[in-house]
Amino acid sequence: MADTPAPLRIALAGLGTVGAGVIRLIEANAALIARRAGRPLQVTVVGARDRTKDRGVDLSRYAWEDDMVIMGERADVDVVVEMVGGSDGSALACARTTIEAGKALVTANKAMIAHHGLELAAKAEEAKVAMKFEAAVAGGIPVIKGLREGAAANEIERVYGILNGTCNYILSTMEDTGRDFADVLAEAQSKGYAEADPAFDVEGIDAAHKLSILAAIAFGARLDFAAVDAAGITRLRAADIAQADALGYVIRLIGMAETMESPAGKVLFQRVQPHLVAFDHPLAHVDGATNAVVAEGNFSGRLLFQGAGAGDGPTASAVVADLIDIARGEIGAPFSVPVGELEAMSAADAGSRTGRAYVRLMAADRPGVLAEITAAFRDAGVSIESLIQKGRSDDQPVMVALVTHEGPESAVAEAVRLLSGSDSLAEPPLVLHILAD
Amino acid sequence: MADTPAPLRIALAGLGTVGAGVIRLIEANAALIARRAGRPLQVTVVGARDRTKDRGVDLSRYAWEDDMVIMGERADVDVVVEMVGGSDGSALACARTTIEAGKALVTANKAMIAHHGLELAAKAEEAKVAMKFEAAVAGGIPVIKGLREGAAANEIERVYGILNGTCNYILSTMEDTGRDFADVLAEAQSKGYAEADPAFDVEGIDAAHKLSILAAIAFGARLDFAAVDAAGITRLRAADIAQADALGYVIRLIGMAETMESPAGKVLFQRVQPHLVAFDHPLAHVDGATNAVVAEGNFSGRLLFQGAGAGDGPTASAVVADLIDIARGEIGAPFSVPVGELEAMSAADAGSRTGRAYVRLMAADRPGVLAEITAAFRDAGVSIESLIQKGRSDDQPVMVALVTHEGPESAVAEAVRLLSGSDSLAEPPLVLHILAD
Repeated sequence: MADTPAPLRIALAGLGTVGAGVIRLIEANAALIARRAGRPLQVTVVGARDRTKDRGVDLSRYAWEDDMVIMGERADVDVVVEMVGGSDGSALACARTTIEAGKALVTANKAMIAHHGLELAAKAEEAKVAMKFEAAVAGGIPVIKGLREGAAANEIERVYGILNGTCNYILSTMEDTGRDFADVLAEAQSKGYAEADPAFDVEGIDAAHKLSILAAIAFGARLDFAAVDAAGITRLRAADIAQADALGYVIRLIGMAETMESPAGKVLFQRVQPHLVAFDHPLAHVDGATNAVVAEGNFSGRLLFQGAGAGDGPTASAVVADLIDIARGEIGAPFSVPVGELEAMSAADAGSRTGRAYVRLMAADRPGVLAEITAAFRDAGVSIESLIQKGRSDDQPVMVALVTHEGPESAVAEAVRLLSGSDSLAEPPLVLHILAD
Repeated sequence: MADTPAPLRIALAGLGTVGAGVIRLIEANAALIARRAGRPLQVTVVGARDRTKDRGVDLSRYAWEDDMVIMGERADVDVVVEMVGGSDGSALACARTTIEAGKALVTANKAMIAHHGLELAAKAEEAKVAMKFEAAVAGGIPVIKGLREGAAANEIERVYGILNGTCNYILSTMEDTGRDFADVLAEAQSKGYAEADPAFDVEGIDAAHKLSILAAIAFGARLDFAAVDAAGITRLRAADIAQADALGYVIRLIGMAETMESPAGKVLFQRVQPHLVAFDHPLAHVDGATNAVVAEGNFSGRLLFQGAGAGDGPTASAVVADLIDIARGEIGAPFSVPVGELEAMSAADAGSRTGRAYVRLMAADRPGVLAEITAAFRDAGVSIESLIQKGRSDDQPVMVALVTHEGPESAVAEAVRLLSGSDSLAEPPLVLHILAD
């Protein structure tokens, strides 16, 4: 160890909060990182859209590159960290150029990986360079590594988790305070916990990006973001959360993927939806902006990875873990198996699944409505385990909440279809699945 | 990928339940492992003390080697998996021979790593071979990887967790049933959840082995098993668990390590002891034989890894994950940084720590005893947050349980010392620390 080994020379493309966090981390922990990586990590070049903005970190010691796309072509760069954001545009151009220049790529960009991850991974495999994206899923939690390496001996039977911190913050705050969605969202926005345009988070798109990445790695399947059946949390009411609580559940936005056998071969089921989670399930205790991922392996059993799902520190931790792996010489297939060996799986038909569901209806408060509702479930072949009609307030629709016995999802969908257009209902029924043990 | 890449040739030394589990796993998941590892894993040789025993797996396709010590010297072996057990003896001889022969070593043997890990790692680094021991800590949970790689960017501030499944099973069963320790232990033994000689588990030695390994990796410290302050769960009564519950806590055997600054430099604190864990802490919900480890990084924040802490399937999952890493070409320093760069840290003085404690005393039921107890705490400078004296039964000692305010551990120890030898106490006070947030 007499000679100082060559540093890993890093370009940072994008200097938002994560980029600034990466700089702070590499400076603060430089000595221990060098010991662990076997060589120093050295930021050589940085670039962002606006050079003049104050980011709270001293950039004077780094070269500035206006054109982030060509960072990977510089002679003083071994690896580019893409933190520009957006699935396409300059983020994607930067990623492509970097790999084509034979340089390693690290990214925190879940949208880009969800949409273009296979193309980029194939390019990286061809160029024999590393491409890593731990920070793209579940912030600081090393869950990509956990699936790709830690659980690599297992056939994964199911992977699921709480993948969006904003939604989990909103849901657990609704739970704690009894307040309604819109109210809590507005507060989260004012505190900076939710974006001004929260659609990506609260509609489940962000969680769907992450789920599609996890599913590809867990199942060796070709990444298929478009096949994720995604719904968000916007329709949830405080009354749903109270009702779930009375039944022994919390409500969490769960991204869940599993494979199933079908006559046409293995099919992949991917869903993001609020689920009822039983009090005794580990995910029921995940509160606030925390993320958590469960992987169920055929030998490992249930593995749980939990931690901060966002924030500059945790995200920087994941980015720099990737850089340390690269400094240590790790160049593996980004999705665990080479892209050419990933299996193209059709999207599974949700209707063929079985499970228990919570169905909430807002019904007119008049005679016969309950009979109409229960008849629809009977006619669809759905067996009802419990039903509660909540007390009324004048002229307002009353809430009817029911839980089904285990049965086909298609039957519940049929009951909902039978009720569609009924003038007894003030809005379409809300169906939430109950997370199976 | 036209040519079939060379398999990784594996010798299994020891064919207990874990060894048989490794064979079953490698056979069951062979195709997906080969895709992920980039080459097949092929068991070539096996050996154990008794060749004739039925292990429920077909060994006819593997060569048999009577002398496990020399397995690594065989030409048909790339890596030896040591599952003989015991810190010394043939396990250690096998490990040494393997590394000296220039072959990689995988082991599930926490006792051997706790006692001889530094020697073996130094040998492996010199021989430039991999030495991996994921299965030695927390069964199937990839927590060595999580610390060594996933959290590698962080200065770890504290690492702690539930590291012994037998103890956790006993404690959570005591909690659920209100039964006493000896009763639950006997049942656990009859069910095979606890060893006939349970001392290693219930006295905290097994957890101490694991903690010392985690601490070395987390802090870059020279492994120092002898410095672990270890206590077990044998003194706990059902009444302690009930009392903790009334105060908002569960009791868990926690292994905990952190570094502290001292005038003489950085010192390492390692303790295994039953702790009171607040209901809202993630570890409070870890029941049964499950293990869980928390690492707190200066950028990642709190990371939690949870899963099955024992069992042939989960342990085999960890062993084979190591084998896949080796097949992929990963040869890093076993303790994350080279042995020569690990810092020798003195053991921290527990008395210099501050915290809150639960103290339980079995006191004679006569006037003045409570005054004697409280005077001792006053004289030691301990401030009492709450105290409860439980109802008596004839002629039996009564239980007095108190919780202290935050203060020096040395003061609580002094209070206990002041009470030592008092004929008012039926047994020495039991001091349990309250896990800090």
